[in-house]
Amino acid sequence: MTGPGGLPVTPRALRQEIRKRKLARPTCGLAPGYVQANLVVLPQERAFDFLLFCQRNPKPCPLLEVVEGGSTEPRELAPGADLRTDIPRYRVYRDGALADEPEDVVRYWRDDLVSFLIGCSFTFERALLEAGVPVRHVEQGRNVPMFVTSIPTKAAGAFAGPMVVTMRPIPREKVVTAVQVTSRFPAVHGAPVHIGEPEAIGIADLARPDMGDPVTINEGEVPVFWACGVTPQAVAIRTRPPLMITHSPGHMLVTDRRDAEYAVF
Amino acid sequence: MTGPGGLPVTPRALRQEIRKRKLARPTCGLAPGYVQANLVVLPQERAFDFLLFCQRNPKPCPLLEVVEGGSTEPRELAPGADLRTDIPRYRVYRDGALADEPEDVVRYWRDDLVSFLIGCSFTFERALLEAGVPVRHVEQGRNVPMFVTSIPTKAAGAFAGPMVVTMRPIPREKVVTAVQVTSRFPAVHGAPVHIGEPEAIGIADLARPDMGDPVTINEGEVPVFWACGVTPQAVAIRTRPPLMITHSPGHMLVTDRRDAEYAVF
Repeated sequence: MTGPGGLPVTPRALRQEIRKRKLARPTCGLAPGYVQANLVVLPQERAFDFLLFCQRNPKPCPLLEVVEGGSTEPRELAPGADLRTDIPRYRVYRDGALADEPEDVVRYWRDDLVSFLIGCSFTFERALLEAGVPVRHVEQGRNVPMFVTSIPTKAAGAFAGPMVVTMRPIPREKVVTAVQVTSRFPAVHGAPVHIGEPEAIGIADLARPDMGDPVTINEGEVPVFWACGVTPQAVAIRTRPPLMITHSPGHMLVTDRRDAEYAVF
Repeated sequence: MTGPGGLPVTPRALRQEIRKRKLARPTCGLAPGYVQANLVVLPQERAFDFLLFCQRNPKPCPLLEVVEGGSTEPRELAPGADLRTDIPRYRVYRDGALADEPEDVVRYWRDDLVSFLIGCSFTFERALLEAGVPVRHVEQGRNVPMFVTSIPTKAAGAFAGPMVVTMRPIPREKVVTAVQVTSRFPAVHGAPVHIGEPEAIGIADLARPDMGDPVTINEGEVPVFWACGVTPQAVAIRTRPPLMITHSPGHMLVTDRRDAEYAVF
């Protein structure tokens, strides 16, 4: 079964195309209504501290599933999937430095690697759009603007560092709705961490994001900030692990779970 | 400042009395409005798997805080508290067998011990009462009845086993309210895991709980089942850790956090 553009519409079929290396593109917009996930893979010796870091920082690091060493199958999110091949593009870091950006990581895999799958804001953006709240970077076809803030995360072992946030300009009369809608999705970053004053959280210039693209802020719009899944990656890189594997930005794991399964109330 | 019966009313003052061994009693009813927590302490070598077990089973194991090896202070829940002395009574297990039930665990403590503080149903019971939903074991001055079910938990390493639940008989016209009220408290077991049919979850006889006391079920009342914090203790004991420390049943850590801080919406 295929959808617009001849793309498969079920997550399983999509992952099979990705595994065959026939779909090396960002996953934004694919399999609408299904949860997509960030990936962070670390050696077992770092896994307790990283798991604890996620437990302490659920807004930037909403854990959806942890796959233990020896396994590559995310049985909760995507039974039958293989974390080494079913993401369109990966990043491989050695001692904290980017070493490769391959289409699969079979040759890098080791039995002591633990995989962390972390919620992604695609889910709550769809909910915002359905509630009539505009999502500017989607309208403008850009990457979401991301900023390193002065908000500290709660450390765990060597894992520590500032929270990274995304910014979406929201019409002032829709700010409350935006809070309400995203509060329903704690598994994908949840409610905003800040509303309105970038300088209060250490952001000097909204026109110059640290990552991603700037977006237009119209008259009458308020910048609203959500915790970003780049935070755990940034924090993990700072610890210079001997080996770390992540998805490449925008190239997520498409799971079999529906967005609605992660909504509260 | 003291309340009825001359008992201190602030959590900090209560913990100081407990630390001086002047308050060796169950904590039910003490410092109303403040969160109380279950304690599970395990050696570092078991900590990753146990943390992962909690992450996979948030209903029976709602983690409020993890205190790493080398520290005895739960800085989030109760700054200044000492986990070795500030609980009225402890249990010490050696290789899975109860070895001691002391009033403090200073002499058992080691720097490699990791402490897990887990939510307790006192918080949601207060919310039920405030919403006009009766809590039978409180009315009858008994322990809540607990049952080992046929519902499996999701394993992590050696940690595995059946879910333990508590049962509260709820008037049928208040079952929906009971679901709504407890859904607001995911950090303290949250919504029920089952409504109405004990045999469907492997419970043969409501009059014979596996732990705690039986309670009266009146005509027109429905048995409602919630995941129980005894689950992680039971699961941990099955792995026969060389050393494991817990609170003694009913003798919880009284924290500085308000119940309302853990409510969603």
